[in-house]
Amino acid sequence: MLMEQPNWLKQRAQLTPNRLAVIQGNKRLTFLKLFTEAEKMAAQLKRLAIEKGDTIAILMTNRLEMVICIHACFFLGARVVLLNTRLSESERLYQIEHSEAKLMITEEPFDEQYKNAMTVEDLQKISPEPFFQTVDIHLDDTATIMYTSGTTGRPKGVMQTFSNHYFSAVSSALNLGLMEDDRWLVTLPLFHISGLSALFKSVIYGMTIVLHKRFEVKDVLRSIQADQVTIISVVQTTLTRLSAELSNCPEPLRCLLLGGGPAPSALLEECRKKQLPIVQTYGMTETCSQIATLAPQYSMTKLGSAGKPLFASNIRIERNGVPCTSGEHGEIIVKGPTVMKGYLKNETATRESLKGGWFKTGDLGYLDNDGFLYVLDRRSDLIISGGENIYPAEVEAVLQTYPFVIEAGVKGVDDNIWGKVPHAFLVISKAVDREELIQFCKDRLAAYKVPKAFHIVEKLPRNAANKLMRHKL
Amino acid sequence: MLMEQPNWLKQRAQLTPNRLAVIQGNKRLTFLKLFTEAEKMAAQLKRLAIEKGDTIAILMTNRLEMVICIHACFFLGARVVLLNTRLSESERLYQIEHSEAKLMITEEPFDEQYKNAMTVEDLQKISPEPFFQTVDIHLDDTATIMYTSGTTGRPKGVMQTFSNHYFSAVSSALNLGLMEDDRWLVTLPLFHISGLSALFKSVIYGMTIVLHKRFEVKDVLRSIQADQVTIISVVQTTLTRLSAELSNCPEPLRCLLLGGGPAPSALLEECRKKQLPIVQTYGMTETCSQIATLAPQYSMTKLGSAGKPLFASNIRIERNGVPCTSGEHGEIIVKGPTVMKGYLKNETATRESLKGGWFKTGDLGYLDNDGFLYVLDRRSDLIISGGENIYPAEVEAVLQTYPFVIEAGVKGVDDNIWGKVPHAFLVISKAVDREELIQFCKDRLAAYKVPKAFHIVEKLPRNAANKLMRHKL
Repeated sequence: MLMEQPNWLKQRAQLTPNRLAVIQGNKRLTFLKLFTEAEKMAAQLKRLAIEKGDTIAILMTNRLEMVICIHACFFLGARVVLLNTRLSESERLYQIEHSEAKLMITEEPFDEQYKNAMTVEDLQKISPEPFFQTVDIHLDDTATIMYTSGTTGRPKGVMQTFSNHYFSAVSSALNLGLMEDDRWLVTLPLFHISGLSALFKSVIYGMTIVLHKRFEVKDVLRSIQADQVTIISVVQTTLTRLSAELSNCPEPLRCLLLGGGPAPSALLEECRKKQLPIVQTYGMTETCSQIATLAPQYSMTKLGSAGKPLFASNIRIERNGVPCTSGEHGEIIVKGPTVMKGYLKNETATRESLKGGWFKTGDLGYLDNDGFLYVLDRRSDLIISGGENIYPAEVEAVLQTYPFVIEAGVKGVDDNIWGKVPHAFLVISKAVDREELIQFCKDRLAAYKVPKAFHIVEKLPRNAANKLMRHKL
Repeated sequence: MLMEQPNWLKQRAQLTPNRLAVIQGNKRLTFLKLFTEAEKMAAQLKRLAIEKGDTIAILMTNRLEMVICIHACFFLGARVVLLNTRLSESERLYQIEHSEAKLMITEEPFDEQYKNAMTVEDLQKISPEPFFQTVDIHLDDTATIMYTSGTTGRPKGVMQTFSNHYFSAVSSALNLGLMEDDRWLVTLPLFHISGLSALFKSVIYGMTIVLHKRFEVKDVLRSIQADQVTIISVVQTTLTRLSAELSNCPEPLRCLLLGGGPAPSALLEECRKKQLPIVQTYGMTETCSQIATLAPQYSMTKLGSAGKPLFASNIRIERNGVPCTSGEHGEIIVKGPTVMKGYLKNETATRESLKGGWFKTGDLGYLDNDGFLYVLDRRSDLIISGGENIYPAEVEAVLQTYPFVIEAGVKGVDDNIWGKVPHAFLVISKAVDREELIQFCKDRLAAYKVPKAFHIVEKLPRNAANKLMRHKL
C-alpha cells in the first residue's frame, strides 16, 4: 500500500483553507493561516540546521504557538518529543538527552539550563530560510515521542507514528460520528496523548479545536456555548467538577469523552440522571489515545464498562499467557493500527510488551459475555493481601459514594501478617465517623478489601493527566 | 505499520450486532445475521475446496445473497471477481479464465456454459464444513477484481486491495461526514465500484445500506422515506429522472453523490434550484470509487467542477509528462491510498499507467486557480451510457470481424435518456444485413455496447499517423 501522504496540514489548507483550525480565547486561526504560520516557523527552524530525521523537544503549555510549532516540525520531517511541563528539570533533561533532541523549543517562564533551548518568541525572530519545501508524510515514520513512567526504572519513550495518529483519529470518527459543525474542546495538555490527539483530528477531519490553557470549570462552561463546542475530553476529576455545575447537557455539546481510568459508578449514575452524554474510554500513550469506548446506548446497561474496541482493533484478556474466558480477570492485551511502534532505544522493554503485534498493557480487566471491557485497575497498583487481589479503584469507588467524601485514594501498605493491607486517603468536606465509614465499606466490600487505616488529606497526588498516583499517597 | 486487521464484517458483528446491515425490500439483515449467513456460506464454500488465495467469480444482481456471498469469500481469504451481468457470455468467459477463477457463483436465469458455475441457491444446499475459522484481512491483499475495457485490446483486471477499500470508505466519510442514522441507497450494481463501495462503507461505518435491484424512480422515492435514506449514489441518467419527479429535497436525504462522468450544467442548475444537495464526484474503478468531490458549499460558485481530492490523495494535470499550470488542459494524474495495486497479470499496462504511485487516468481536465478540478472528457473517446463505460475500440474490434466490414469507427452521440449512445461508422465492401449485424454484435457484446445506429461511409477520418479521429466521425 501507499505509505506516503501529503503533509496533512498542507493538504487541509488546500482543501478547506477558510475553515477555523484553532480557537484560543479571542485568537482564531484558519487552516490556511495555521499552514502559513507553521511553514514560516519551519523555514526559521531550517536556519538552525534542523533536518529531516532530527528530533526536537517542545516544552510548552496549551497555546496557538505550540500547535504551530508541532506542525512546523512535521513540515521539516522532524520528530517531536513532547515534554511534560510538570516534571522536574532533571526528569526533563533525561528525556531530552535520551531522545537526542537537537533543540528544545520552550516559553517563558521555563528557565531551562539546557544549552540548546530557545523560546518560541526568539525562534519567531529568526529570518526564515527563503527556499523551503514541505516534507511528505511517511506513515511508518515516528511523528511524536512521549515518555511514560514505568512502574520501576527510567521513563520509556513511546514512539507514535503518523499511521498510529491517522488510525486513531479515523477510528474515533467511525465510532463517534463526524458532523460538519463539530468542535473539540481541549483542556488536557497537548503534551499528553489525550490532548495531542485532538490536534491530529483537527487536520484530518478539518475540525476546529478550542484550546484552553487549563481546566477551569467556569471557562469551560462559557466556552461550550460561546465557541459552539460539540465534544470535550474529560477525566474523572474534571467531569466531577463539570457535573457539579450542570443540571442537564448544555447546547450544542453532544459528547463528553471520558478517559484516564475507571470512573466511580456514582459519578456515572449522576451523569446519567443529568443526561450528560458520557462516552467512557480506555486508552493510553502506547495506543495513541482511545482503543476502546462505550457507545452511549450502553451507558446504562453496561455502566462502568469501557466498551468495545475501536474498529480495526482487538482486545483480549490473558493470565500467564493463557487467554481468559468471559468474566475471568487477567491482563488486558491489545492489538491494532494505533499501537505504538515501540519504546525508543529500549529493545528490551519493546520486546517484553509487544509480541506479534499484541501489546501487554499491564492493566487488569475482564470481558463480559457480550465482549464489553471492564478495566479493574493498573497492574502496578494491585494490592495482594493474604493471597487475595484487591483493586484500589474498586475500594475507592465505594469510598467516594460515602457522604462528605470528595475524593479517595487507596494503596497497599506492608503488613506482617497479610503481606499488604489497603490504606485509604480521603479528601472530605465535613468530618466523617470512622466506625460508620468502616461499616459502610463492610456492607459493600469483602472484609479483606476494607481499608485498615484512613488518612485525611488536603488533596490527592495526581499527575499532569489528573491520574491518581497511588504510589505517592 | 500493522497490516493485519480482523475481518471487517466479523468485527462489525461484534461491535454493533443488532444494527441493520442491509435492507432489500421487506428483507432486513442485522450485522450479526449477515455475519452468521456469510460464515455459513464460507463453510459451504470450504466444502468445495476453496482456499485462501483462490479466486471466485460472482455473477449476480443486487440482492442480499450477493452481499453474503462477497463477505463469505473474504472470510475464506478468497479474491472476488465481480462480473458485469450485462456482458455477453464470451466477454465474461474471458474474465473468468483470465482471473483463473476456481468457481463462479451465479443465480437464475444466467444459463452459463462455464463448467465450474453454481447458483447461490445450490451453494446454500451444501452441508457446511463443521470447523471454520475466519481469515484475517491483510491490507495489501487484493480483495476484489473488476475488469475495465482498455482503449485497445482485451479488458484489464483492476486489483483493488483491502487497503484501497478502507481508505476509500474513510476518505469519503471525512468528506461527507458520518451520522449515526446514515443510510445509503444503492441502485447501482454491486459489480461496479460505485455500488460495491457502499458494501465496504457499510461494515466499516456500521451503516445500513438499502439495496435496490435496479433504478426505478418510483421505488427510489418511496424507499427514501420508507427506509429513511440519507445518501444516494446517482449517475447523470438516474439523477435526471429523479429530479424530474422532485420539486425539493425529500426528507431525510442529505446527499446525492453524483458520479460517472461530467454532468450537463443545465441539470446541475435545475438541481440547485430545487435545493437538491448534489455532491459531484470524480472517480473510476482504478481509484476504488471517488477520488475528488465538490463540497456542497461550492456547488454554485464552482458549478461543473468535480471539486478537490479526497484527504490523503493528490491530483495533478500533465501534458507530455510536464506539469500544467492552473487553467491549462492536460491529462488528469492521481495519487493516493485508493489507487489500485495494478492490473492483474498485465505488467505492461500497469507499468504504463502507474509510475511512482501516480496513476495516469487517461482523462482530460484542468485545475483552476483555487485547485478545483474540471473534468473535460473521459479517456479521449470513452462513451458513458447510462453510467456504463463503452470503449469505442472494443466495439470497433467486433465490427471489424464481421464479413465485408473493412473499417469501423464508433463514437458517442447525445441521447436524452442515456446521456450518450454509441453510433457506428462503417466502410464496407459489400452490402451488410443490418439485423444480422446487430445479432452478431449482441452475441459478442453487452447490449448497451451495441451501436444504436449504423452509418455507411466512404472512408474514416484519420490523422497523419493514420490514427482514427473519432471526434470527426
